[in-house]
Amino acid sequence: MLHFDTDYMRGACPEIIKRICETNLEQTVGYGLDEYTQRAKEAIRQTIGRDDAEIHFLVGGTQTNATVIDGVLGKFEGVLCAETAHINVHEAGAIEASGHKVLTLPTEDGKIKAEDVEKCVRDFNRDESRDHIVAPGMVYISFPTETGSLYTLKELEDLHRVCSNNSLPLYIDGARLGYGIMARGNDVSIKDIARLCDIFYIGGTKVGALFGEAVVVCNNNLLKHFFPLIKQHGALLAKGRLLGLQFETLFTDNLYFKLSNNATERAMELREAFVAKGYEPYGFSPSNQQFFVMSKEEINTLKSKVSFEIWAWEDDNRAVVRFVTDWATSKQEVMQLIDCL
Amino acid sequence: MLHFDTDYMRGACPEIIKRICETNLEQTVGYGLDEYTQRAKEAIRQTIGRDDAEIHFLVGGTQTNATVIDGVLGKFEGVLCAETAHINVHEAGAIEASGHKVLTLPTEDGKIKAEDVEKCVRDFNRDESRDHIVAPGMVYISFPTETGSLYTLKELEDLHRVCSNNSLPLYIDGARLGYGIMARGNDVSIKDIARLCDIFYIGGTKVGALFGEAVVVCNNNLLKHFFPLIKQHGALLAKGRLLGLQFETLFTDNLYFKLSNNATERAMELREAFVAKGYEPYGFSPSNQQFFVMSKEEINTLKSKVSFEIWAWEDDNRAVVRFVTDWATSKQEVMQLIDCL
Amino acid sequence: MLHFDTDYMRGACPEIIKRICETNLEQTVGYGLDEYTQRAKEAIRQTIGRDDAEIHFLVGGTQTNATVIDGVLGKFEGVLCAETAHINVHEAGAIEASGHKVLTLPTEDGKIKAEDVEKCVRDFNRDESRDHIVAPGMVYISFPTETGSLYTLKELEDLHRVCSNNSLPLYIDGARLGYGIMARGNDVSIKDIARLCDIFYIGGTKVGALFGEAVVVCNNNLLKHFFPLIKQHGALLAKGRLLGLQFETLFTDNLYFKLSNNATERAMELREAFVAKGYEPYGFSPSNQQFFVMSKEEINTLKSKVSFEIWAWEDDNRAVVRFVTDWATSKQEVMQLIDCL
Amino acid sequence: MLHFDTDYMRGACPEIIKRICETNLEQTVGYGLDEYTQRAKEAIRQTIGRDDAEIHFLVGGTQTNATVIDGVLGKFEGVLCAETAHINVHEAGAIEASGHKVLTLPTEDGKIKAEDVEKCVRDFNRDESRDHIVAPGMVYISFPTETGSLYTLKELEDLHRVCSNNSLPLYIDGARLGYGIMARGNDVSIKDIARLCDIFYIGGTKVGALFGEAVVVCNNNLLKHFFPLIKQHGALLAKGRLLGLQFETLFTDNLYFKLSNNATERAMELREAFVAKGYEPYGFSPSNQQFFVMSKEEINTLKSKVSFEIWAWEDDNRAVVRFVTDWATSKQEVMQLIDCL
Repeated sequence: MLHFDTDYMRGACPEIIKRICETNLEQTVGYGLDEYTQRAKEAIRQTIGRDDAEIHFLVGGTQTNATVIDGVLGKFEGVLCAETAHINVHEAGAIEASGHKVLTLPTEDGKIKAEDVEKCVRDFNRDESRDHIVAPGMVYISFPTETGSLYTLKELEDLHRVCSNNSLPLYIDGARLGYGIMARGNDVSIKDIARLCDIFYIGGTKVGALFGEAVVVCNNNLLKHFFPLIKQHGALLAKGRLLGLQFETLFTDNLYFKLSNNATERAMELREAFVAKGYEPYGFSPSNQQFFVMSKEEINTLKSKVSFEIWAWEDDNRAVVRFVTDWATSKQEVMQLIDCL
Repeated sequence: MLHFDTDYMRGACPEIIKRICETNLEQTVGYGLDEYTQRAKEAIRQTIGRDDAEIHFLVGGTQTNATVIDGVLGKFEGVLCAETAHINVHEAGAIEASGHKVLTLPTEDGKIKAEDVEKCVRDFNRDESRDHIVAPGMVYISFPTETGSLYTLKELEDLHRVCSNNSLPLYIDGARLGYGIMARGNDVSIKDIARLCDIFYIGGTKVGALFGEAVVVCNNNLLKHFFPLIKQHGALLAKGRLLGLQFETLFTDNLYFKLSNNATERAMELREAFVAKGYEPYGFSPSNQQFFVMSKEEINTLKSKVSFEIWAWEDDNRAVVRFVTDWATSKQEVMQLIDCL
Repeated sequence: MLHFDTDYMRGACPEIIKRICETNLEQTVGYGLDEYTQRAKEAIRQTIGRDDAEIHFLVGGTQTNATVIDGVLGKFEGVLCAETAHINVHEAGAIEASGHKVLTLPTEDGKIKAEDVEKCVRDFNRDESRDHIVAPGMVYISFPTETGSLYTLKELEDLHRVCSNNSLPLYIDGARLGYGIMARGNDVSIKDIARLCDIFYIGGTKVGALFGEAVVVCNNNLLKHFFPLIKQHGALLAKGRLLGLQFETLFTDNLYFKLSNNATERAMELREAFVAKGYEPYGFSPSNQQFFVMSKEEINTLKSKVSFEIWAWEDDNRAVVRFVTDWATSKQEVMQLIDCL
Repeated sequence: MLHFDTDYMRGACPEIIKRICETNLEQTVGYGLDEYTQRAKEAIRQTIGRDDAEIHFLVGGTQTNATVIDGVLGKFEGVLCAETAHINVHEAGAIEASGHKVLTLPTEDGKIKAEDVEKCVRDFNRDESRDHIVAPGMVYISFPTETGSLYTLKELEDLHRVCSNNSLPLYIDGARLGYGIMARGNDVSIKDIARLCDIFYIGGTKVGALFGEAVVVCNNNLLKHFFPLIKQHGALLAKGRLLGLQFETLFTDNLYFKLSNNATERAMELREAFVAKGYEPYGFSPSNQQFFVMSKEEINTLKSKVSFEIWAWEDDNRAVVRFVTDWATSKQEVMQLIDCL
């Protein structure tokens, strides 16, 4: 059986496993105050070109989004995002459970437009009833988006400008950040990300780590008193050095980007083969998630040999399906998949 | 200056003021355990034809919605409603502040369709990721809606059927219930309301009371332990008898409906005159709120003599505006308004 | 039947009823933006000698406490108070329902000591685990306390100093503020209150109003964006002018203090008579609530003629009971009560 | 430098590291639906003698407590526990952040008494104001407690009886469960735990795992719909099989108890040596945490060679300090510590 369900099906890259083994019996202080964690922070600061960034390590993505957004928003504010955003659709109401409204903008491709953010703020400001309305308090985007698409540098700069002009912190969910950065045709570097947003997180879970996400606070006036909030959200790992160790490894010798590159190269091979065989792509994703429209019959046939996700049913007979590569997907696996089509 | 801003600009109907004066120095127990409150409950039960209904009196609408919805929903559930619903737009995030997601359905006229509710539930049930998605846990509608439109009896029966089949409690926000019941062309009685939903509230604030809303729990398996929740939400009035007194008065001799009828008759006069003068109605409202599209210039001119609300700007030069009548609006006031056009 | 259960059993003082009647059919804008509300604010500012105070009117006490405390605290902070505090015991968890921990200090008489606040802060600051502990974020006291006792001016000044030194906002719950100010032996004026705390509220519900509490923000760096938070808490009265009208009336010609004085004078008569008849006072209350220890038999006998509250059972045979006077209690009522003993 | 700060300073036991390495590149479905997780559940069910128990794996302790308690309590209910309980003191307000009050009982040794629980429920039930008071909705205890003490079988049976009689779910925080079970003199087995409480969790983080806690629901009418709540709390690990793998390993061949036994044996050696050298124990702990009272000077001297925690300052010159052993502490480490005294 081949598996293209998602990018968190395997463990960690061998370099990480090696470090976990080597350091296993060392004793370090808990909660991220250890030296591995400090070195990981330093390695990330070097990579993004921001000496002043504050960095926190959490365990998973939903947890990270809920904790960051809870830390940034005032009680009367909500978070603006695409209607397809992970926080709006697939986090079981975690944002609302900590008291905040998710304010959605329409989207065709998983991205939101600077002009829609601007319109939303302007409409709010001139609404006579605005004191009865949840104020837009920050903007959430994902890079890549939930359907694999990418903001161009120009689009990010536009969002940055609108957010700055309106004092809206811009937060980027980078659960698959590496797969976006290394995507074919992408013109956004991690330094651009660090320059253009207020906070972002670098996904580890899906990009070579056992688990873990690195929150990078570029605008360090935000998220003061964040440590107790991490604890309050149940997001503080006792053995914090496990997170430090992993991110130190990922951000040594460009490993994070090398791992990411494997996934996006395999994804392009997969995409081209699917298209060559006549399958209809759904949307345009240059990153490690590839979407196609398939008939129920095609799905059932393929499912006997390959596991993959049904993303959404278009009607009773056709669905959008998803194939995902990761840091460890081999050329051979992709070829085997193609042979099954 | 004429005032057509909204229906909570005056105090209470004279009958209520009289009762408040007459009973002012009596001493009664607090928190709604007094005899006035018991009699008000009995009068409402008679009116709606449901001896078994449980009734609670709260102070205002946002408070009522937040407390009821918090009482009905499980922690993993959200409330389905129109994207234009009061709870989604104009309650400052009160639903989310108590931890619950508002799940919106598209709407053209402020109403939601039974088939959209059904589709939402079906999509949820067959989504492979449904354990990561907020489950639809109840349905919220308003009667009349925020833009004055009304569900027909057939539409309510359809919603009732879909909700019953899917074990979704149906909750009706009746902030302006009387104005809906007494609207021209309406075919829904208050007994129909009580038969077709699980919980509804009868608005007092906007319909002749000083303040107060009566929550009617038709399905009394819901909202067990509601009293401490009312207290927790800060919605328990110490001098509860003030609420009892008012609703006893409103539900004696059909006063609630007589007061409502005045508003809807005046609204029809207003509407017809506006249309006759060439103003374009916005949507179709048979109840006490009337919406028209006006140019900025028309608005500015009229604002010097009449106060009214700008509902939403359509573009930089045109806006939807709202004129509202109430239980006390006189024929003369409507005529004066028409003369200003 | 005589009623000494509590101070919210009657309606409002005649002056307020008169004003409600006189203005009933006027149309004013909602939500406290009307002129009555502005004049009420001005009257309170004059009375407390603080031109810069921001004032908001809410409906009830639990609601006011929950909204103010939610507005002041950061997410990682809790509110320090006596273990007997109303917010800790009798608000159905309203503070926790908006996400905040109530941090209790021991008390013998309902009051907390400046030195205990100081010790709590010092212990927190030197605790190695303080990032895992809820930080003290504000101090709540009630004046009078839940058992009728009063802080002396010296005690308030000490609390003020400790709070200032530690950047802890001091908030005073004045549900029965007038009854404290006018208590025999009290040396604290309302101007002292306004000088020594950051926020307090002036109780109307229990002191002559139909309902309503006035939040006075002396330190107006606190509670920015409070209006939408009031709305979010369901605490915004549509017909806000009803609150304005009442407080304008109460703060005209010293009415608030005259009404309060009646209650405390009657309470002293009551107390002296009880003591003369050999009943044991519980604690020392110079304000309008009087507590005594009674046997079950005494309680049962008296209950046939007088209604009053059992405050707490000391053992199976003896309980602390409470008798409360209010702005309208007559000398005759007190004499009738005494005759029943 | 010797380290006796806490029991989460090292990685995992070698058996777990070996399994993580062996299975690293396998692809499994996420979120705990994999076969490792199923086998871990089976192994735990066998060990506790409860075929019907439902088991969920979460990442850390605070997260587990917050999620379980949020799942069990109704909105109007609070959780009863010792005033020293971890949830009351060291979880940064996580329980309150999800809306629930922590109701504390006095304690001398970290344990609560069945009779105090019973009194609390009785007082609540006969309080005339109980609808304004947070209802006791469940009982939380820790085994061992935060200061290392243990409930006897008799004490647990008493708590079980009182809880059952009053329909209060009993929840046991077993962050250090193994260290309690294997403590010298303990008469409670893990089967007793599973028989006497409704829910407990088996701590992995502190007892040989890299991380992870196993929630065991013995009364499986509780915690329905728990999966989405885990997700909502940000407590769902994407690579759930990592948790399954670890608990499968720990509950194979009694490994969990063998690892635990090492810690408690070392703790007894440590304790006896401290006492022999004249140090005053603080409380009585038969488990892996040992507390002593030391002077500031003794602390400062020892801190140059050994790291350990200051638990609480008794006065300016004396503090309670804590020394913790774990599954990997060697006899040699203990001897070196003793030599430093």
